[in-house]
Amino acid sequence: MMNKYRVTFLPDQKEVEVAEGATLFDAAEKAGVYLNTLCGGVGVCGKCRVQVTKGNAKADKQSIALLSGEEIQSGYVLACQTRVQDNLEVFIPAESRLEEEQILTGSHLEEQKRWRETCPLTYSEPQWLSVHKRPYDPASVFEPLVSKVYLELPEPNRDDNIPDTARIVRGLKKKLKYSSYEMPLDCLQHLSAKLREYTWKITATVARHNDMGRILQIEAGNTSDGNYGVAVDVGTTTVVIQLVNLKTGQVAGVEGSHNLQARYGEDVLSRIAFVCGKGSLDILQQAVLENINNLIQSLAQEKGIDIEDITFMVAAGNTTMSHLLLGLMPCSIREDPYVPTVDLYPQVSAKEVGININSSGILQVMPSVASYVGGDTVAGILACGLADRMETACLIDIGTNGEIVVGNSERMLSCSASAGPAFEGGDTKCGMRATRGAIQKVKISDGRVIYETIGKAKPRGICGSGLIDLLYELARNRVIDIDAKFRPSVKGKRLVEAAGQLQYMLAFPEETETGQALVISQSDIDNLIRSKAAMFAAVKSLVDYVGLTFAELERIYVAGGFGSYLSIEKAIGIGLLPDVPRERIEFVGNSSLMGARMALLSLHMFEKAISISQHITNVELSYYAPFADEYMAALYLPHIDHERLFPSVKY
Amino acid sequence: MMNKYRVTFLPDQKEVEVAEGATLFDAAEKAGVYLNTLCGGVGVCGKCRVQVTKGNAKADKQSIALLSGEEIQSGYVLACQTRVQDNLEVFIPAESRLEEEQILTGSHLEEQKRWRETCPLTYSEPQWLSVHKRPYDPASVFEPLVSKVYLELPEPNRDDNIPDTARIVRGLKKKLKYSSYEMPLDCLQHLSAKLREYTWKITATVARHNDMGRILQIEAGNTSDGNYGVAVDVGTTTVVIQLVNLKTGQVAGVEGSHNLQARYGEDVLSRIAFVCGKGSLDILQQAVLENINNLIQSLAQEKGIDIEDITFMVAAGNTTMSHLLLGLMPCSIREDPYVPTVDLYPQVSAKEVGININSSGILQVMPSVASYVGGDTVAGILACGLADRMETACLIDIGTNGEIVVGNSERMLSCSASAGPAFEGGDTKCGMRATRGAIQKVKISDGRVIYETIGKAKPRGICGSGLIDLLYELARNRVIDIDAKFRPSVKGKRLVEAAGQLQYMLAFPEETETGQALVISQSDIDNLIRSKAAMFAAVKSLVDYVGLTFAELERIYVAGGFGSYLSIEKAIGIGLLPDVPRERIEFVGNSSLMGARMALLSLHMFEKAISISQHITNVELSYYAPFADEYMAALYLPHIDHERLFPSVKY
Repeated sequence: MMNKYRVTFLPDQKEVEVAEGATLFDAAEKAGVYLNTLCGGVGVCGKCRVQVTKGNAKADKQSIALLSGEEIQSGYVLACQTRVQDNLEVFIPAESRLEEEQILTGSHLEEQKRWRETCPLTYSEPQWLSVHKRPYDPASVFEPLVSKVYLELPEPNRDDNIPDTARIVRGLKKKLKYSSYEMPLDCLQHLSAKLREYTWKITATVARHNDMGRILQIEAGNTSDGNYGVAVDVGTTTVVIQLVNLKTGQVAGVEGSHNLQARYGEDVLSRIAFVCGKGSLDILQQAVLENINNLIQSLAQEKGIDIEDITFMVAAGNTTMSHLLLGLMPCSIREDPYVPTVDLYPQVSAKEVGININSSGILQVMPSVASYVGGDTVAGILACGLADRMETACLIDIGTNGEIVVGNSERMLSCSASAGPAFEGGDTKCGMRATRGAIQKVKISDGRVIYETIGKAKPRGICGSGLIDLLYELARNRVIDIDAKFRPSVKGKRLVEAAGQLQYMLAFPEETETGQALVISQSDIDNLIRSKAAMFAAVKSLVDYVGLTFAELERIYVAGGFGSYLSIEKAIGIGLLPDVPRERIEFVGNSSLMGARMALLSLHMFEKAISISQHITNVELSYYAPFADEYMAALYLPHIDHERLFPSVKY
Repeated sequence: MMNKYRVTFLPDQKEVEVAEGATLFDAAEKAGVYLNTLCGGVGVCGKCRVQVTKGNAKADKQSIALLSGEEIQSGYVLACQTRVQDNLEVFIPAESRLEEEQILTGSHLEEQKRWRETCPLTYSEPQWLSVHKRPYDPASVFEPLVSKVYLELPEPNRDDNIPDTARIVRGLKKKLKYSSYEMPLDCLQHLSAKLREYTWKITATVARHNDMGRILQIEAGNTSDGNYGVAVDVGTTTVVIQLVNLKTGQVAGVEGSHNLQARYGEDVLSRIAFVCGKGSLDILQQAVLENINNLIQSLAQEKGIDIEDITFMVAAGNTTMSHLLLGLMPCSIREDPYVPTVDLYPQVSAKEVGININSSGILQVMPSVASYVGGDTVAGILACGLADRMETACLIDIGTNGEIVVGNSERMLSCSASAGPAFEGGDTKCGMRATRGAIQKVKISDGRVIYETIGKAKPRGICGSGLIDLLYELARNRVIDIDAKFRPSVKGKRLVEAAGQLQYMLAFPEETETGQALVISQSDIDNLIRSKAAMFAAVKSLVDYVGLTFAELERIYVAGGFGSYLSIEKAIGIGLLPDVPRERIEFVGNSSLMGARMALLSLHMFEKAISISQHITNVELSYYAPFADEYMAALYLPHIDHERLFPSVKY
């Protein structure tokens, strides 16, 4: 018989019994404690380090390479590589736990509320949306796909004894523009009794479906004020929802959490590998459904909104996220020639998918362009209005998978670049997402480091915008060279050698929340450079492909999960963004969520999204020969062709 | 504690244990023995008489009125009125059991087959459909709503890597005319793996839905030959299905059974009363689903057709039958002002309703006109082509609920008359449905009675067409008078007095299968006369209402469950049908089933049915004052105004 051991996780004091040989990672999950991972549990990212404080457990050979001698001495191991052979007590350092732990493990609303108050995900809405008047401002074409219509119907009599459905349709035709209506079977059932019980004063929930009105539900009395929708940005790393009043168009609230799928792989490729390998589609689908349902529940509760009053959801995500949300196998997305199952996702029943809103509610996923240019990009185009204007513009969505669109109302091309998670807090030892405690601004002056954290908290790590600043400041201060290598000549208090490589001390142990120094090593910088090179090379390749120059781009929209801050100047300074007049560049934040909300509030906007998705020409960069050279040329700060491409950048 | 008793039913030797106080009717049902009932178990029809051969059980006071002294002496009781207070042995006479017992109780196909061979329901298809060329012959617009299309798709490559769904749609657009397609979620799931496993050689099942192509399923290879549909006539008394090849349009087979709902009431009013009173909707819905599913299963098995290859079903029934089939409460149909829930039934998933065909299969119920003019009438109009021609015609569907339509391609009016079940075998002691052993033709000559039974079997009863003949022959031979009363002066061997009334011996005990005489009593004749009067008065009222005369009707279509035989001459002779030149009258049999098949084979026909249902003006005879007088005038043979209205009828 197999032995069983008890594992206690600190500081939560969560205890669990597992069979001999289970990994600490699995034991933690069983205990409801979720650990960080980038690699999906194969022992190469080092994000799941934990400290064994009682009992015997040893770091394996592979893990040793990722842990310092001191750490090994203190009992640190990689949870994913360590098998339980003894009763253990294990301490989980703050940086190793998934930050939204409280929202994940506790279904207690108290806990959730506490977490939200102390550790909010930053959500920023670009200022221009509310400030500037845009031709396609959602308010100008406000017409949600799902509406609630109050009807006071005349009672049937001998001269007017048309069927109940015909009576409702006759009433609706006076208020809505649909020429025909359909009523699904479940709404028809008991309709007759309901109408009479409600004395013919009813509210009909009507959705557009194939240009018809589809009557989803009949409620007693006038409930037309209680009609809400949810816009969701299903990001690979973050899931953000907005709860929107479909009668007024006003946003009732916004809430985000980290995508629970991250446990099974950091990027889309590793998640596809999980689903199509030893894992299962259902696990990943359920993970993101848990995200969405938790967010809806807590936000609705906070705002005092009945979940039954949420009738419509629009979700924007990359093609893989969209497939996983709907329970569609993503395997062929990953295989040359990169074919998704579907681009125009059908209007589906939210209940059928597993979304907990009104049981007749509808889920619409934003249409995608190709395997690596998804509904989030289409939503972003919608949000920027790129397809509505004659001016040629470019949308750059910086993320683990970066997407670029170039074009105007006449023609649009897109491409994607696998940039890696460096700018989303992955791939660097101290990298973290743009949440509380993340360094988001950095300035280096005379050897002094000035930084600013999100929430003004003690630093816990550094997020994308902080890394851009840091890279720029290191280059400007000549701590790193044009080839992005530390200059050994400036070694000193900040630039030190450790584990065989140079690393820069961004914050000393006494400054940080964890009591450990925040450092950026040469290999961290290498990862960042590769990310920025991939992004820039993709932008450059696409612009070249179209036959344009950067100077001809009249506007550049930059989207990404950078929180509320991104220094355009410094992003150009490191060669991430092209060197164009600064006023042409606009940081639009989470344009995917914004586009989803626009589609939620306006069926015309959703139609436009379909049209956009079908008219973009996608360029597969892996088939485009010059991309490799562009990438190589961009592995410098700011670029190997500094003078021609980045004339305004001076360190 | 309540006592339990054992009841054994003979001749089946079926034993069951029931609680004290259960009725024998319920005990029989529990034992899987189904008894006849017209009244729904309230003790007034006398159809469920059984003989208690062991144990104590007494007929109650009410029952005694319906049983002869001799019967009471022999232990006869009404099963629905007799409560079990002892262990019993009960014999069920042939006439008291529902004839399709074998198909109901045995799921064994052997038994079913035996029953079908020995006791087929007669189904007749009017000759003209296959003989004459009609402008709307289904063959000329053959286009079933559901089709199967074989596609050999090119494998994706780098130059052609559109999504899987787009590839399928591209293939379909070359073969079908829909400009847009949708694929429901369950078909999308696993689509990617299927396509690759099937090496892109697939058969798509496509249904039209709101003018789009809806892709229901994807199968491996070319399965386009395996596409079948089912047309169903859901009659109040009889359910008949036709299995039709949707690729060729050919009828593969036909099968019928008695509506199992009959246990809960003979006509629609008593069934509505059951559902809306102490009974339940679910019981009646499940009953008719059992009918349909059994018929499909046995017919498909007989014809060697896979049930998975049945993708589409069209059902025609009166408004109540249609509501019950879909699980819609029928209560308001019965209450003034007679409002049904719905007239245009939505296209629904057969599986959702409980029909066992392909799990993606579709059920479409024919649209209805009003509470008492249903989809069966609309189907009948379709079958007759009444709405397609300029000539003014009349459709008379004789049944428990009779429907009449008068009109042409310009204008149509309808009405209904509650005629009672006399012509369907109810309301008369020896009446039965048009099945094996039923007398369907009668001639009386010099006191001799010559009859013909269905299947040339020994007579078991008399069906509608036999009753029409009999009534006519009794009148012609002056056994009954113009007021439809037996003439006491002709009393003799055939016309005898029993239980205080005169009755006519149609068949002596030695001639019959049951060994009991087949007789028609004065009260039977009264019931028949009331039925025929209601039908004729309805026809007359509607023709008057429109401002026409019978002479202006260029054609009269007569539909009804009369088996293969109906004497037009004798039907006119008793004043059931108007006295017009005989060649204008066409007996079209089960026009409801025929119309359902037309809609099954042609979506244009279904559209026409919708158009018909929406353009008929229904006249509620209960609000039409002259109807009562017309009814009174028609309670004579052939009519009180014999000379003016039936000049050609001479006895």
